[in-house]
Amino acid sequence: MASENLQHKIDSAYNKIKEHIHRTPILTSQYLDDLSGAQLFFKCENFQKIGAFKMRGALHAVLTTPKDELKKGFVTHSSGNHAQALARAAQIAKTTAYIVMPKGAPAIKVKAVKGYGGQVTLCENSEQSRIETCQQIIDQTQATFVHPYDSDAVILGQATCAKEIYEQCPALDDLICPVGGGGLASGSILATKAFSPTTRVILAEPKNADDAYQSFTQKKHLKVIRPNTIADGLKTSLGKRNFKIILDGAAAIFTVSEEEIIHAMQLIWERLKIICEPSCSLPLAVVLKNPNEFKGRKIGLILTGGNVDLSNLPF
Amino acid sequence: MASENLQHKIDSAYNKIKEHIHRTPILTSQYLDDLSGAQLFFKCENFQKIGAFKMRGALHAVLTTPKDELKKGFVTHSSGNHAQALARAAQIAKTTAYIVMPKGAPAIKVKAVKGYGGQVTLCENSEQSRIETCQQIIDQTQATFVHPYDSDAVILGQATCAKEIYEQCPALDDLICPVGGGGLASGSILATKAFSPTTRVILAEPKNADDAYQSFTQKKHLKVIRPNTIADGLKTSLGKRNFKIILDGAAAIFTVSEEEIIHAMQLIWERLKIICEPSCSLPLAVVLKNPNEFKGRKIGLILTGGNVDLSNLPF
Repeated sequence: MASENLQHKIDSAYNKIKEHIHRTPILTSQYLDDLSGAQLFFKCENFQKIGAFKMRGALHAVLTTPKDELKKGFVTHSSGNHAQALARAAQIAKTTAYIVMPKGAPAIKVKAVKGYGGQVTLCENSEQSRIETCQQIIDQTQATFVHPYDSDAVILGQATCAKEIYEQCPALDDLICPVGGGGLASGSILATKAFSPTTRVILAEPKNADDAYQSFTQKKHLKVIRPNTIADGLKTSLGKRNFKIILDGAAAIFTVSEEEIIHAMQLIWERLKIICEPSCSLPLAVVLKNPNEFKGRKIGLILTGGNVDLSNLPF
Repeated sequence: MASENLQHKIDSAYNKIKEHIHRTPILTSQYLDDLSGAQLFFKCENFQKIGAFKMRGALHAVLTTPKDELKKGFVTHSSGNHAQALARAAQIAKTTAYIVMPKGAPAIKVKAVKGYGGQVTLCENSEQSRIETCQQIIDQTQATFVHPYDSDAVILGQATCAKEIYEQCPALDDLICPVGGGGLASGSILATKAFSPTTRVILAEPKNADDAYQSFTQKKHLKVIRPNTIADGLKTSLGKRNFKIILDGAAAIFTVSEEEIIHAMQLIWERLKIICEPSCSLPLAVVLKNPNEFKGRKIGLILTGGNVDLSNLPF
């Protein structure tokens, strides 16, 4: 896509969703700047509606659906933030969200989805059961399926986050974001092409779920097998569209260990005084692990979400 | 003080300190608005330098001290945020802060003060020992004593917080802030007179440390006896200057129980995704406890600080 075309698409996505989302603030910390030797700008999507950036993509997908389709509702499978985001987006659009969640999903997550008016259907904890259950709902309702990340509309919605960052913090050398399915990562790459083409987009991934790193390095789309990481938002494998955009546009992918994730998480909680999910800590963990790569640079770091069970902290 | 004169004084305080402080953001939550029936604007001083609003007052006191005096350094007794604030303010002004702390003070607080270059002297855990130890330091060094709240310079510094709020959120019906020694409370009253005279300033106090409520109601300056509250920042009795300003300018003082404080604290953590001290929860606790007083109103709530021991949460 040419960059003016991209600009137009992302601006248009932003204009569609902006009245229903927060323009989240950017926080800084002298202590973390000193510690890293860089200038760090933390974009607080943990303060976003429903507590995560996922609101942007789900809402954009819903609001760009033609009226006749929109009335029939939306369906997705997710036990994470996308489930809440789609439920809330459907509620805003005065239609129905059918959310398929695995039977083992935490009660608090099911309750949150229902709190936004989502209709929850429980399925077995397997990919096959999730897909079949979604298909049954689609057959019955003709609802539109909204993939959590492998969707152009969702990617453009997520791109509005980096668009805001470049308005709030011009002239960043690097933008670092965590990578799971790749919705935010690919959206950030598109927004960077459109609004700040000299900024490097760097992705941060748990070593224990490093399919994006492996796929990027080997230039072929690989799936993650049995991921085991505290960063539960990043266990997913890259989507097809997402892999393509990342292969083309990411400057690098760095991985970090579980210990490095927890250490960075604790620093963020203590120093920025905010509550954020383990996944949020990966960009800071990457900066601290690779001082030669980042010293002296002006860096945006996306904090993706804040939906944490406060009674179950790793420190 | 006439209101133009006050405006000038607070603007001048703000201009002195602004390059060294954060203009902290305001957060909102649809959930908390729905729950309270009001429009709530949370001013996040937990994101302030050193993690609390105290930075404003201490820095203003330091930066308005004549050069000859400034060179001799500053002294205070505090085991809380004022200690860190004065240490950091002195560091900015390239002079020395002598901080007197009781022997029982948590190691983490002593470390934080030293981290900002403060020279710590431990004393016995009694008012007499604190005063004597400060006096010895003053005799030896001619350092300037900076009271945590009963000081015009400190009060004007704290007033810059409400000044920012009125710039960020015009036309508030109410501004609610917690009251301990009364530095923030009296500063907020002065800023309201100067910049938003139709806004009511409401103070929030723990029932278990209700000297401000008692003093206000009985119109005489009473001290708190054996306060026992989780809101450790609010155990202090009102200062003399502070009492006078509060008696003249507060619209009301409401008290809340320990359970109400903890409940509001949990709501703030979960819904705003921020880390803040128990003292911060009092304004929200007051709103939730008195729906008839606040329904339909546009309310600023000051979150005072975020220096919390994460390993010792009440939930």
